[in-house]
Amino acid sequence: MVYRVIAQVSDLDKVKAALISCRNLLEDISDVQLEVVFNQTAVKALIKGGGYEDDVSELIRRGVVIAACRNAMRLNSVNEGDLINGVVIVNSGVGEIVRRMADGWLYLRL
Amino acid sequence: MVYRVIAQVSDLDKVKAALISCRNLLEDISDVQLEVVFNQTAVKALIKGGGYEDDVSELIRRGVVIAACRNAMRLNSVNEGDLINGVVIVNSGVGEIVRRMADGWLYLRL
Amino acid sequence: MVYRVIAQVSDLDKVKAALISCRNLLEDISDVQLEVVFNQTAVKALIKGGGYEDDVSELIRRGVVIAACRNAMRLNSVNEGDLINGVVIVNSGVGEIVRRMADGWLYLRL
Repeated sequence: MVYRVIAQVSDLDKVKAALISCRNLLEDISDVQLEVVFNQTAVKALIKGGGYEDDVSELIRRGVVIAACRNAMRLNSVNEGDLINGVVIVNSGVGEIVRRMADGWLYLRL
Repeated sequence: MVYRVIAQVSDLDKVKAALISCRNLLEDISDVQLEVVFNQTAVKALIKGGGYEDDVSELIRRGVVIAACRNAMRLNSVNEGDLINGVVIVNSGVGEIVRRMADGWLYLRL
Repeated sequence: MVYRVIAQVSDLDKVKAALISCRNLLEDISDVQLEVVFNQTAVKALIKGGGYEDDVSELIRRGVVIAACRNAMRLNSVNEGDLINGVVIVNSGVGEIVRRMADGWLYLRL
């Protein structure tokens, strides 16, 4: 059985702890398919050259989907070209999460 | 398909971002049935004449159910007569959320 | 029908409100089976002799499972012997939550 998990990170000051939780989840459950949506101020953590690039890139290399909310990008002046390589953009973070849950994914608010 | 979503807002200082997320959800998914439960300190945002009245009233006009937790009202000295017109009261925010989820609603923690 | 609920508390400064929410849930829904996972900094609230011992012990007496995340314990220098009597340890808080949800439990982020 594969566990499909859609996680939400909203606060920039919770990103560090959230990234640790993601790694803990990958280590605890080997067959997890994980997507992490960054919305609100947390989207600023996805900027290339920022303090989270190494950790985010490592998650992407391990198969985690990292998604930036376009609405949050606009509000926080983050452009597409600013994003860490491999980050995907979704129209709205909450819309993405709702659609995933409707498709049976499990929801985690980090 | 209608997406039924039960959302939770608990912190007063997260209300502004939460209301933006609600609007984003309504714009991203047209066929969403949304109820937002305000508990803990967030219940103070539902006071008539407060800074959130316009945004909350607009959501109610668009069909969103805005629910105040009675326990949180008591703890924060918010009376029934203080609430923005159209806000409904539930016995406990967490009880309301659990019952909705048990009925198949999708859960969002804003 | 029994409502099985897996709740998550992550922030130490949200523990007080979270414990109130747990009591509200038990009072609002009599047939609830509740497990509360303490991860990240919230794990520090589970220390014997700390300010939360009475409230946590009362929940345990009422049948609530209180679980401490081992990863969070390590990060916050909390040892097994430091924990309030009756608290159980799980390998990772997020792993525990995901497994419970996959088994049909309802998720609450307090």
